[in-house]
Amino acid sequence: MTPIGPTDSLTQPRYSGAATFARLPRIDEVADAEIKIVGVPFDSGVTYRPGARFGPSAIRQASRLLRPYNPAQKIDVFQTVQVADCGDISANPFNIEEAIEAVSNHASQLIAGNSRLITLGGDHTISLPLLRAMHARHGRIALVHFDAHLDTWNTYFGAPYTHGTPFRRAFEEGLLAEESCMHIGIRGPLYGSSDLVEDAGLGFQVITTDMVAEMGPKEVAAQIIRRVGNSPLYLSLDIDVMDPAFAPGTGTPEAGGLSSREVLTIIRALSGLDLVGGDVVEVSPAYDHAEVTSVAASHVVYELITLMAIKMANGS
Amino acid sequence: MTPIGPTDSLTQPRYSGAATFARLPRIDEVADAEIKIVGVPFDSGVTYRPGARFGPSAIRQASRLLRPYNPAQKIDVFQTVQVADCGDISANPFNIEEAIEAVSNHASQLIAGNSRLITLGGDHTISLPLLRAMHARHGRIALVHFDAHLDTWNTYFGAPYTHGTPFRRAFEEGLLAEESCMHIGIRGPLYGSSDLVEDAGLGFQVITTDMVAEMGPKEVAAQIIRRVGNSPLYLSLDIDVMDPAFAPGTGTPEAGGLSSREVLTIIRALSGLDLVGGDVVEVSPAYDHAEVTSVAASHVVYELITLMAIKMANGS
Amino acid sequence: MTPIGPTDSLTQPRYSGAATFARLPRIDEVADAEIKIVGVPFDSGVTYRPGARFGPSAIRQASRLLRPYNPAQKIDVFQTVQVADCGDISANPFNIEEAIEAVSNHASQLIAGNSRLITLGGDHTISLPLLRAMHARHGRIALVHFDAHLDTWNTYFGAPYTHGTPFRRAFEEGLLAEESCMHIGIRGPLYGSSDLVEDAGLGFQVITTDMVAEMGPKEVAAQIIRRVGNSPLYLSLDIDVMDPAFAPGTGTPEAGGLSSREVLTIIRALSGLDLVGGDVVEVSPAYDHAEVTSVAASHVVYELITLMAIKMANGS
Amino acid sequence: MTPIGPTDSLTQPRYSGAATFARLPRIDEVADAEIKIVGVPFDSGVTYRPGARFGPSAIRQASRLLRPYNPAQKIDVFQTVQVADCGDISANPFNIEEAIEAVSNHASQLIAGNSRLITLGGDHTISLPLLRAMHARHGRIALVHFDAHLDTWNTYFGAPYTHGTPFRRAFEEGLLAEESCMHIGIRGPLYGSSDLVEDAGLGFQVITTDMVAEMGPKEVAAQIIRRVGNSPLYLSLDIDVMDPAFAPGTGTPEAGGLSSREVLTIIRALSGLDLVGGDVVEVSPAYDHAEVTSVAASHVVYELITLMAIKMANGS
Amino acid sequence: MTPIGPTDSLTQPRYSGAATFARLPRIDEVADAEIKIVGVPFDSGVTYRPGARFGPSAIRQASRLLRPYNPAQKIDVFQTVQVADCGDISANPFNIEEAIEAVSNHASQLIAGNSRLITLGGDHTISLPLLRAMHARHGRIALVHFDAHLDTWNTYFGAPYTHGTPFRRAFEEGLLAEESCMHIGIRGPLYGSSDLVEDAGLGFQVITTDMVAEMGPKEVAAQIIRRVGNSPLYLSLDIDVMDPAFAPGTGTPEAGGLSSREVLTIIRALSGLDLVGGDVVEVSPAYDHAEVTSVAASHVVYELITLMAIKMANGS
Amino acid sequence: MTPIGPTDSLTQPRYSGAATFARLPRIDEVADAEIKIVGVPFDSGVTYRPGARFGPSAIRQASRLLRPYNPAQKIDVFQTVQVADCGDISANPFNIEEAIEAVSNHASQLIAGNSRLITLGGDHTISLPLLRAMHARHGRIALVHFDAHLDTWNTYFGAPYTHGTPFRRAFEEGLLAEESCMHIGIRGPLYGSSDLVEDAGLGFQVITTDMVAEMGPKEVAAQIIRRVGNSPLYLSLDIDVMDPAFAPGTGTPEAGGLSSREVLTIIRALSGLDLVGGDVVEVSPAYDHAEVTSVAASHVVYELITLMAIKMANGS
Repeated sequence: MTPIGPTDSLTQPRYSGAATFARLPRIDEVADAEIKIVGVPFDSGVTYRPGARFGPSAIRQASRLLRPYNPAQKIDVFQTVQVADCGDISANPFNIEEAIEAVSNHASQLIAGNSRLITLGGDHTISLPLLRAMHARHGRIALVHFDAHLDTWNTYFGAPYTHGTPFRRAFEEGLLAEESCMHIGIRGPLYGSSDLVEDAGLGFQVITTDMVAEMGPKEVAAQIIRRVGNSPLYLSLDIDVMDPAFAPGTGTPEAGGLSSREVLTIIRALSGLDLVGGDVVEVSPAYDHAEVTSVAASHVVYELITLMAIKMANGS
Repeated sequence: MTPIGPTDSLTQPRYSGAATFARLPRIDEVADAEIKIVGVPFDSGVTYRPGARFGPSAIRQASRLLRPYNPAQKIDVFQTVQVADCGDISANPFNIEEAIEAVSNHASQLIAGNSRLITLGGDHTISLPLLRAMHARHGRIALVHFDAHLDTWNTYFGAPYTHGTPFRRAFEEGLLAEESCMHIGIRGPLYGSSDLVEDAGLGFQVITTDMVAEMGPKEVAAQIIRRVGNSPLYLSLDIDVMDPAFAPGTGTPEAGGLSSREVLTIIRALSGLDLVGGDVVEVSPAYDHAEVTSVAASHVVYELITLMAIKMANGS
Repeated sequence: MTPIGPTDSLTQPRYSGAATFARLPRIDEVADAEIKIVGVPFDSGVTYRPGARFGPSAIRQASRLLRPYNPAQKIDVFQTVQVADCGDISANPFNIEEAIEAVSNHASQLIAGNSRLITLGGDHTISLPLLRAMHARHGRIALVHFDAHLDTWNTYFGAPYTHGTPFRRAFEEGLLAEESCMHIGIRGPLYGSSDLVEDAGLGFQVITTDMVAEMGPKEVAAQIIRRVGNSPLYLSLDIDVMDPAFAPGTGTPEAGGLSSREVLTIIRALSGLDLVGGDVVEVSPAYDHAEVTSVAASHVVYELITLMAIKMANGS
Repeated sequence: MTPIGPTDSLTQPRYSGAATFARLPRIDEVADAEIKIVGVPFDSGVTYRPGARFGPSAIRQASRLLRPYNPAQKIDVFQTVQVADCGDISANPFNIEEAIEAVSNHASQLIAGNSRLITLGGDHTISLPLLRAMHARHGRIALVHFDAHLDTWNTYFGAPYTHGTPFRRAFEEGLLAEESCMHIGIRGPLYGSSDLVEDAGLGFQVITTDMVAEMGPKEVAAQIIRRVGNSPLYLSLDIDVMDPAFAPGTGTPEAGGLSSREVLTIIRALSGLDLVGGDVVEVSPAYDHAEVTSVAASHVVYELITLMAIKMANGS
Repeated sequence: MTPIGPTDSLTQPRYSGAATFARLPRIDEVADAEIKIVGVPFDSGVTYRPGARFGPSAIRQASRLLRPYNPAQKIDVFQTVQVADCGDISANPFNIEEAIEAVSNHASQLIAGNSRLITLGGDHTISLPLLRAMHARHGRIALVHFDAHLDTWNTYFGAPYTHGTPFRRAFEEGLLAEESCMHIGIRGPLYGSSDLVEDAGLGFQVITTDMVAEMGPKEVAAQIIRRVGNSPLYLSLDIDVMDPAFAPGTGTPEAGGLSSREVLTIIRALSGLDLVGGDVVEVSPAYDHAEVTSVAASHVVYELITLMAIKMANGS
Repeated sequence: MTPIGPTDSLTQPRYSGAATFARLPRIDEVADAEIKIVGVPFDSGVTYRPGARFGPSAIRQASRLLRPYNPAQKIDVFQTVQVADCGDISANPFNIEEAIEAVSNHASQLIAGNSRLITLGGDHTISLPLLRAMHARHGRIALVHFDAHLDTWNTYFGAPYTHGTPFRRAFEEGLLAEESCMHIGIRGPLYGSSDLVEDAGLGFQVITTDMVAEMGPKEVAAQIIRRVGNSPLYLSLDIDVMDPAFAPGTGTPEAGGLSSREVLTIIRALSGLDLVGGDVVEVSPAYDHAEVTSVAASHVVYELITLMAIKMANGS
């Protein structure tokens, strides 16, 4: 059965109609979807500039510009598999633990069949419940984490669940295939050298921004592929992995980051990996300008969908 | 049958979920609607700063903040009548006449039953086809037009259909109940004194911004009520009737305008008139800041819905 | 002893040096202060656009423009009483109840002597702990509340302590001199007519924005004076009582509000009341432009200081 | 001889072509002009937010929207007298006294015949040399000064010529018809009560913003007319006389100001006075948004031109 | 005869005076010009964010910062050949075909002698009439096209002339020296693989953004030089060839683009080619920030002028 | 004695408390400091967009995000040496020479002991008095100057001291160790070829932006190290050395610049040089967005502190 694709932009202008991701059908408009997009408007876990609760709507609005054929990967994405927009998960802004629970439950339902899931954040807190759902479905997960920050702190102000702690919690809960986990794009000052020591203790391999600059995107991708192998992969991308020039609309900007081109090039080169889930988080539209950040985020999501579609087209 | 109201903001945050107007149901989620909201993302008729094509989505996004009970009018709007969002009308940006035709046809279908219609613009060109649809359904229409400008020019660059000409065309086509038509909020320099003479020849009564300032909103409303009487009323509001301080996000700003409070007060005082249709046009989000303009526009739409609901609740 | 005033702007430019409020001395630079300014950078209680955590620094930055002599009140404010900036109260962003406790404790210490206190928010959640501290020191407090919203909801998402609930909690805790409490500037849609009924049950008198427009600022002030009488007064001002044109930098904007001039005129006319504490909340700088909102907020704070100074100069 | 008017907007779009004021001819395109517009891009006299050096180009850009017929005054301005744009006066940014000299000399040449002159600032420093030129041509000048601030300070950082001192210098130099001078719109805190005392000593009458609010624009105009009488009048308007909501793009904003409507209404009601020169200063575009400030400024200039044209049409 | 150069910035500040391109003389101030700059404020052909009608004035305003000596090319551009600003071509915003005709006619006159022409857009629709004028003067033209998009679509909403179709039309009309045409910087999703197939059928060679990243700017330039050879060259640059970080002010942004440095480096390395005409299009100032986009565009124009001047200095 | 470090961000949120640089102690809170940070809010020397007077407060506000451990250099900066914020130097905005004198005097006092000094500008004029102070303390200084512009002009409008002339003056005054001076990042058009000739005559070596792009940051650093050797080094960085995409908030932007990553990489590789002083100038916040520029500036300052700390830790 041919998938139902996006609204036709040649007869209905791209700036018109409802802003589902990439103008794709809503989940209630299709029988089921092999790839699902869902938003989690939640930012109660942030430590500096808030506002990522408006991230999902901004990314969807920017995604109006996406088109169905990916020339870099030579695939007509939305004709290959059914992709659908599942709306937003309702998350309590006043109770982080309840919100985490809601995300985990809702995500589990969304991937109950064979669906792959990409989530629009929201702050990075939400990756923990998403990994819980992934783990429940797929077992230990290889995590490839694009971010300026490690996000493996222990607590902040006594709180165990914040946007700085999801991956330590995930490790502690046994969700991760540790030998396959990586941080990409780390940079900027830390609280202490112990941040790195503790992070290494969780099994993460770090490719800093400087290392990306030196080895180039292709080699970075090659290292990721070697480390992940055949494990089910979850790719979590904090938009602040990009330099503030490319992603001003975020909460904890760090100078000296990656360009959007470098990020997209790395992701495209991951073709073949078994990407079962992903997220793009920390888009804070109040700090964006001219949709620069949300356009970049929408392209990342598009490339994640493409990776999934390629894998599924090849019989995964 | 109880109408289906907006998504409950106490369990699903107002910043989450799809941005239908006021978080109301889509038209396909209800049997039918007594009041319909539709967008016309079209701005090919503008003469200065473009961008009103993004008006419908911006007004809907800002309308997330609206709540169901209108204390100024003492009515629970969305429990009184069924209101629904009908999405956007697709209008060809490269062919003004084709776009006008599409709007007219689509609007006629939307009001085919007993539905009243409020349109989110888009530039002021669209009022002509909307008045055509209204006239076809209700006969000659009383037009109350809030605007800094007369919009009764003849042509611009040889073009008969632009955002400066809709009401001259409507007059020529015999759509208007001339003895009941008014401009409210006119101000700013004109091309010549003939602009006013010709406008008066079309039967319009003018209440300038200065006159509003002197007589006060209540008296303005009283004059409107006297002039409109029992005629079927169409209220068209160009957001530039407000001062640029209150509505920076528009295409042809004029200093010295009305405040949003004055505008809302006038409209609320029109209770009892038989408002069959209305529009809020010329919101150009690229020039807006912090949603100031689109929030104001969403409140105008809300008050128009309320006027309709009051009339219908009273057995119109 | 002559108070230590602000840094001299004629020898040290106003844009230089540390941004204490109005360039006043820090509390550690003076023996003690009769009027204290403190910030509470906290916004975990908001329901829509966050960011008020950056309010205190933005208001202080804008307050560089303030000068010591208030011509409308004919008083050299900072020569009359010692005013000092006490910095910020540290409030846990991940635990609302802990944050409330910290604010209450810290504020109690600040007013332990005979000091009066003005707080720079932060979201409206913080008024509850501030009222607790005021009550502990002064007994039942008359509350005059400027806001577009009632802020007497019960819960939101199950949470009892949010920016929409402080004054219901304050009532329930017996902090308020109910017969002396008022809301000024209420406007915009509500969740239901019960919002008003329940609010009235808490003893609040409501002067809506429309009533202010009709009776004028002087009469509003006269009504406040009559209602408050000699009670110790706490004045809480949500910046959204002003129209978004005057205060775009806030979280839940409502069109049709008061002008900054109307607000300042009302407050100035309250001279003689026993203002023991006050706050200006909900300034969200990410949505501000050219400091419009924070300049307006800084003027409100300045007028509150003036009211206190007048009272103290007259032997309160 | 019929004056050469602005470029025709019905055949050449208003957003095209060179941005002379109101799209008027350059002075080299006409034999001579009865009213001249000149810019002074200079802001080295400011004490807080700089940037008014870009004021002239911003006001001209915004003035593209002006049209030739002024309906409030019932006059086709640009058909009545020849108005022309004389470009910018080059003023040394690194030497205030040299800049003042250049402005004075250049302005004297511009008004050498019978021309009237309106200047686009630039900061308020430039009013001093403009008054010098006016005095040399017309003798003692009645000054009507719209501003939030008195601008009659003595020195700042030892400097006698800044944007806070022009009118004290003008008084000292004997340029002013003291018994005819006024400040309109004064508000906000001062350095001390002596500011007002000293200002009164210079002969100024003060109508504060609060007084404008109470007596209304018409009565303000009546008082101005009474005080100015038949004296040659110079009207200097600092855009910060308007509230920051109406004029965010300025250097020393004060909350609680006039609306653009109030300002325009006062100015229009001055018809009949012998306005020989005027300026609109302190427009700082880097702080503007959507041209709100520069549009308001362009309307003020337009009304000043109209006042001059009316006087000249009546045989002044 | 020594060319008349730009206004001297050491005696007249660069922010003062009329904003001709690079502060060059107007065409009516010089006998004739060997290189002409003209604006086409037109954006009725855009499919997403409009506003490029304000592009010419924004680029000219930003070009105030340009200086006459190009150190990268070791040439004093404006002393080598006479360059002049020819103002704007008036283009009907309501009739695309009439606008195209006007541009073609006007451009033909401008290049009637031996003048080379650089056009400031405006949207990409205008390249078609410019190529028509070039072809009429020079015969088949080699086109080097910098853009994120192919712009060789067939129609959009039934319209043959839009900003997405100029180069297919140019091919069909036989204007192009096909064997010498190239796209540089293509990236982002397409409507289908047929987009590329059809484009190749028109004879274009594609160097994608990824290919630029891999081969480097110098090699890209070498390939262009090889392909263009001695043909008369038209270089058309859509500013969206740059990443949105470098050019946010445009209508259809695509993440992952070129840096301004890469673009400038490629263009500088084209020295020696016979550049007879060029354009820089799709600058949409309402989406720009701090003139980032228009500064970049002005530098591109400056380098195009330089290429022409080098060629002419060498006796072309 | 252990240095007193920044406020602990794990117990007091980073957005709270006074904005000293990196939340470090004020100088009056520590006995003395080995590295001192001072602001010079001064911009009276600029030739285009002003506003750098607000640079120090913006950089400090952005520096709240910095953390104490520098992983790229493997050093806990603020535990190694005492760093303190010394507030702002008061500089007369109306008298450039007096301002220069004040900066020179104040800086001399700050470095009287063995302290190293980093200054937050302010415009580039201030580097001259800072070099005077450095020279008085250390003798001839090696200057490494990151900038898009040479800043070795002679005069501008007759003024010898502006932001375009500091290094010519420094040379003339014999402050520089000429054989060790360099410009890094030069690009963009000049007034004439003589600019380069004269600059070379002052002994500067130039590494243009294009040369950085070709040789890479590491090789640039190597060349700097070779040229500077053991000389006492002053590093002056004009933020416009970065491309406007990375630093929009500045006064004279030039397209085609360095990325923040390239700049930071070069600076980090200078480890071992005897950096005795440095400045980061020309941050103009009114043109910034989302703190992109001031975040980048704060990171540069952080790396300069690190270089000093490394040198001191190694016994310099």
